[in-house]
Amino acid sequence: MPETVEIGLGREARRGYHLDEVALVPTRRTRGSTVVSTAWQIDSYTFELPFVAAPSDAVVSPATAVEIERLGGLAVLNGEGLWTRYEDPSEQLARITSEDGCTTAELQRIYAQPVSEELLAQRVAELRTSGVRVAVRLSPQHTVAYSGAVLKAGTDILVIQGTIISAEHVASEHAADAALNLKTFIADLDIPVIVGGCTNYQTALHLMRTGAAGVIVGYGAHSGSTTHSALGIEVPMATAIADAAAARRAYLDETGGRYVHLVAYGDMATGGDIAKALVCGADAVMLGEPLAIAEEAPGGGRYWDATASHPRLPRSALVDLGVDSDAPTLEEVLVGPTADATGERNLFGGVSRVMAKCGYSSVKEFQKAELIVAGVR
Amino acid sequence: MPETVEIGLGREARRGYHLDEVALVPTRRTRGSTVVSTAWQIDSYTFELPFVAAPSDAVVSPATAVEIERLGGLAVLNGEGLWTRYEDPSEQLARITSEDGCTTAELQRIYAQPVSEELLAQRVAELRTSGVRVAVRLSPQHTVAYSGAVLKAGTDILVIQGTIISAEHVASEHAADAALNLKTFIADLDIPVIVGGCTNYQTALHLMRTGAAGVIVGYGAHSGSTTHSALGIEVPMATAIADAAAARRAYLDETGGRYVHLVAYGDMATGGDIAKALVCGADAVMLGEPLAIAEEAPGGGRYWDATASHPRLPRSALVDLGVDSDAPTLEEVLVGPTADATGERNLFGGVSRVMAKCGYSSVKEFQKAELIVAGVR
Amino acid sequence: MPETVEIGLGREARRGYHLDEVALVPTRRTRGSTVVSTAWQIDSYTFELPFVAAPSDAVVSPATAVEIERLGGLAVLNGEGLWTRYEDPSEQLARITSEDGCTTAELQRIYAQPVSEELLAQRVAELRTSGVRVAVRLSPQHTVAYSGAVLKAGTDILVIQGTIISAEHVASEHAADAALNLKTFIADLDIPVIVGGCTNYQTALHLMRTGAAGVIVGYGAHSGSTTHSALGIEVPMATAIADAAAARRAYLDETGGRYVHLVAYGDMATGGDIAKALVCGADAVMLGEPLAIAEEAPGGGRYWDATASHPRLPRSALVDLGVDSDAPTLEEVLVGPTADATGERNLFGGVSRVMAKCGYSSVKEFQKAELIVAGVR
Amino acid sequence: MPETVEIGLGREARRGYHLDEVALVPTRRTRGSTVVSTAWQIDSYTFELPFVAAPSDAVVSPATAVEIERLGGLAVLNGEGLWTRYEDPSEQLARITSEDGCTTAELQRIYAQPVSEELLAQRVAELRTSGVRVAVRLSPQHTVAYSGAVLKAGTDILVIQGTIISAEHVASEHAADAALNLKTFIADLDIPVIVGGCTNYQTALHLMRTGAAGVIVGYGAHSGSTTHSALGIEVPMATAIADAAAARRAYLDETGGRYVHLVAYGDMATGGDIAKALVCGADAVMLGEPLAIAEEAPGGGRYWDATASHPRLPRSALVDLGVDSDAPTLEEVLVGPTADATGERNLFGGVSRVMAKCGYSSVKEFQKAELIVAGVR
Repeated sequence: MPETVEIGLGREARRGYHLDEVALVPTRRTRGSTVVSTAWQIDSYTFELPFVAAPSDAVVSPATAVEIERLGGLAVLNGEGLWTRYEDPSEQLARITSEDGCTTAELQRIYAQPVSEELLAQRVAELRTSGVRVAVRLSPQHTVAYSGAVLKAGTDILVIQGTIISAEHVASEHAADAALNLKTFIADLDIPVIVGGCTNYQTALHLMRTGAAGVIVGYGAHSGSTTHSALGIEVPMATAIADAAAARRAYLDETGGRYVHLVAYGDMATGGDIAKALVCGADAVMLGEPLAIAEEAPGGGRYWDATASHPRLPRSALVDLGVDSDAPTLEEVLVGPTADATGERNLFGGVSRVMAKCGYSSVKEFQKAELIVAGVR
Repeated sequence: MPETVEIGLGREARRGYHLDEVALVPTRRTRGSTVVSTAWQIDSYTFELPFVAAPSDAVVSPATAVEIERLGGLAVLNGEGLWTRYEDPSEQLARITSEDGCTTAELQRIYAQPVSEELLAQRVAELRTSGVRVAVRLSPQHTVAYSGAVLKAGTDILVIQGTIISAEHVASEHAADAALNLKTFIADLDIPVIVGGCTNYQTALHLMRTGAAGVIVGYGAHSGSTTHSALGIEVPMATAIADAAAARRAYLDETGGRYVHLVAYGDMATGGDIAKALVCGADAVMLGEPLAIAEEAPGGGRYWDATASHPRLPRSALVDLGVDSDAPTLEEVLVGPTADATGERNLFGGVSRVMAKCGYSSVKEFQKAELIVAGVR
Repeated sequence: MPETVEIGLGREARRGYHLDEVALVPTRRTRGSTVVSTAWQIDSYTFELPFVAAPSDAVVSPATAVEIERLGGLAVLNGEGLWTRYEDPSEQLARITSEDGCTTAELQRIYAQPVSEELLAQRVAELRTSGVRVAVRLSPQHTVAYSGAVLKAGTDILVIQGTIISAEHVASEHAADAALNLKTFIADLDIPVIVGGCTNYQTALHLMRTGAAGVIVGYGAHSGSTTHSALGIEVPMATAIADAAAARRAYLDETGGRYVHLVAYGDMATGGDIAKALVCGADAVMLGEPLAIAEEAPGGGRYWDATASHPRLPRSALVDLGVDSDAPTLEEVLVGPTADATGERNLFGGVSRVMAKCGYSSVKEFQKAELIVAGVR
Repeated sequence: MPETVEIGLGREARRGYHLDEVALVPTRRTRGSTVVSTAWQIDSYTFELPFVAAPSDAVVSPATAVEIERLGGLAVLNGEGLWTRYEDPSEQLARITSEDGCTTAELQRIYAQPVSEELLAQRVAELRTSGVRVAVRLSPQHTVAYSGAVLKAGTDILVIQGTIISAEHVASEHAADAALNLKTFIADLDIPVIVGGCTNYQTALHLMRTGAAGVIVGYGAHSGSTTHSALGIEVPMATAIADAAAARRAYLDETGGRYVHLVAYGDMATGGDIAKALVCGADAVMLGEPLAIAEEAPGGGRYWDATASHPRLPRSALVDLGVDSDAPTLEEVLVGPTADATGERNLFGGVSRVMAKCGYSSVKEFQKAELIVAGVR
């Protein structure tokens, strides 16, 4: 049973834990870090790093997708982002990243431009041509409308992702878009689908039952997120991931062996955070803001996600990450080496090293490592 | 049984939770936000928003009462505030909100002017004329003295509100004002009364037994409040609301069905905070400081309440909210849209949206949503 | 049983609570604050306020002792402070409070001057002449040496106080001062003695058994204290007071009715803090730093205590309280009225008011008030 | 059983405590501090202070080793530091401590210079000549390679120390250095070995079984450490020390009386921190950063350790401690007297004093003192 507290007479609440409330405890033998593998396989695709680049226009462009593939990860292009709203979004990117700053109102205007299905198909084709494994993200609201173009153009992996979604969405009768039935939709596809985000056991289990190959846990909370203020929703990620891992075990049992991958998304800034997410039960992580400091990142040192440009209730700020001329390469950020001691670079070098210090040689084994909850200092 | 700790040998204390210690957990289906209703009905009055504007001179004037009604809420005029002490309080407001700042000593002097019963009656009449549903607040100490004028002038709802009150007040024999017997007083009235603030189960239950239509939980703690320092009293609102909801259930049972509305007041700055108060058990919220940033607010970007001008022991500061030329409209603050990502604007847009993400379509249902307690970060 | 946690295998630690972790909960009737009495009686001495001014040279001089008596409290002169080391300490006070600041090294030099028994006797005589009830503090190390002079000159109350003392001190064979046997020493006196500080049940009980009329709980932790850093000792005052109150009950039982007064000392800055200390079980409070802002205070807006000038290991800083021309009077600080909203002035006006809001009419009854532990915000 | 929490369904984590979450509680008699002994004996070596200077080039040089010995402690020279990479490292030290600051990249370059076995032997010889007890630190990776030179030159105590080590290291087949078998290595030596760091019961016990005379608990976390960020590893030292003390008891039992000394390393900045580490179960402490403020320290007011210069993933910053012309002597830092009230000087004066206030006369007895866990303030 999970830990609960009674916040008032007859009103219980569960105690959840953030990733930064937990830490890893090396408890067994140690191991040389060269004996460690961080490889991740989902469906028939294998990646050297257990990592997906988030569908943020600040991070994934057709160009960075190639570099991310080369370094061992999977890049997800936002199917409803700048590259599918504008033939050439360089002017928009310049405005967003201008020295003078860009207001949320401007961001709202830039993203008010409609998505073009032709551009969507064209971007998928460009990615195919560049030789990478193609992953595109669509929102649940627009999956029905846009998935045709995406699939026809030949995407390898489809990511259906809203901030928080459920397997059973009750739409208004008059909703502009037809409601998406995830279960029938996924059953009809012959490519793997990753869906999310979800934040708890029940939703994770229901999303697994849709036939998805992967489930995203969390909504990508980053340093500019205000979802907690705007909506009162907060996801203590250590708990959310561990709960989803319990759902994975339950689903494995009820299906007699179907293993759905968990992709943790949010509240991770360092190699240590990623390691803790894996130990809590994630198979891989989705990273947005941590990559936005890279010199190749289209956001030029800014980070924003889809919630930042919401037309009525924006739920995150456009973050200036404060990197200027000394931006690291994506390679330095992901696999090092680095001369930065913050833990924000050589992210997966850190992951391998701590796997070694805890004595594990694969991510799956590493999920058994010990955790400790330490007090606030 | 509530959670208790032993702070010393033989001395127990209960563990209380603040609203910012809890968060909402979407756990079921999601829902389109257009399918959601935030409507609130108390007695025969229905409001589109579950919201009462606090009787602070910084927020409610005869003019803003009209706009608040238009937007779907209920404005409560302070029957013992500037509008009933001064024929035209614009000079006093100008001093309070002057660029040079206004000291607490000045505030004390401004509020030392006696309340005029004629002005009180005149303000109620003005409000009636403007077509809004009229609500006036009186303090428990002065209810006996002033309620005659207020009732005669035709108020729709009477709010009897002190920082912390009880149903059973022991007055000095030589007290200037006769003690108020809430039970007999309310029984004699034929308009609904909202009373408070209270902070615990027992007091909430006793206040319900006075026949009040609504009970205010909390004393309106805001960013300038110093009640904790001056008196050692602090109200963890999540706990206080949940306890009062337990009292509501007990009273519903003992009366065979009389439902008293809970109005949460204090420690709410954002849409997320309001949502959490509702989920803890409130039927509506009373908002002061969050509205004081509006361009229509009489306080011109300052916030103060009755405790700020106490003649012997002021218990809150006059807060400068730091809005200047870019003050939002009341409409933007309450229902949006907004280009502000702090969660402090489009408050009820946020509430509808999170109700939808949690899968509920009415405030009453939303009180069943799941809560999580997350660690300090 | 007190709450314990296991910090490591086989190593338990108790969970203690600071005053600022607890808050008062009004739960019953309320009461007019004019019906409330804060009076305190120890031995045959009655005071309107449950309050002792700490033997800090920054607060108590022969002159302020008179004013403190007038306002209803008891001032304790430090028998080993500036007034007994210097015929006229005004030059030393000027150096300590100079604009340029005074280093700890200077403070050490100033206090290196030996105590004069003649001056000690003379100060007691001056206080007697001024008509106040005379209380003098001696350290346990020097009580044997100096108490003769103090008693002969006619002190009313003797305060034997070190930062942390015990009833059973093991001295070195070659110690400069003979060890003080508190039990036989107090038995031989015919004036009431207050001893302390202590921090736990066992020591409080042993100090009560010495025959002391009052026991000081805590060592006067203030904003400049570094005892936690220098020694690793920290006293969560809510727990320490509640434990000492349990010792008071045990001693009351074992003696068939001897009631020893608890004087809480440390971690109190506001009226709310004082109220919480009383509710935890204190009969009165000892205040140092909170009085040092007064215009009459000899420290001129600085605060220091005996630990600040320790010759080898000073354990608190000389605090500049940042009051300049606008220093309040002692009367404003203690009983108001005030136009300051921080809770640091009109301390006992706050105490009476919260006693009234909690429905109690005497300090002894007030010790039964409810407490709540609220989370860090 | 240790305290555990369920962070998610089926996922438990232990609750660990940092030193700054606990405090000492004086509960018995007090004692004169001159009756207290802080002496420490390991193998046949006795030290007046229970203290080892960390093998950081910022702290231990051949020169400071002499002064540390004189003051009562044991200095450990880093066998893989500047003094064994450079004939005269003064130029490198000047660059590291230059006013312009030194980047991590520069530090990496400086430490890229290979260790010279000749210099290693020469430094040991120099130390012998100066008359101190000689202790040299080697990393587990290089112990096989360098220990020959060190032992032959005549070291008294060998310290085998990595950030986190285990008794059973799994090396790659192709590892550059042969794997070290601690058990056989130590069995063959006739000088005492201190090994570490470790962070938990199991590893501590296994390290004791290697035959080591002492085990280091912790990895020397200091104000610039980023191991938590880079690797997700954090060691709540109060828990780690108490667990290792439990391992010491178990090992004492299984060997019928072999007592292995625990040397706590990390998260200690003040005398109070050291006292708490001893009470948690340490026999001595290893200090790095706290000594780096001394005027004799080779780091000239900077502190860095081996993790700061890691070639691929540096895990701590080069800390500027902000001492300039007023740097204290090592003597003031270690044994006082001081006119500094921060608790960072006269470290062991503080330790003796608190031992006295808790009524204990030796470090071994002091391990029984009471602890309290107090809330965050």
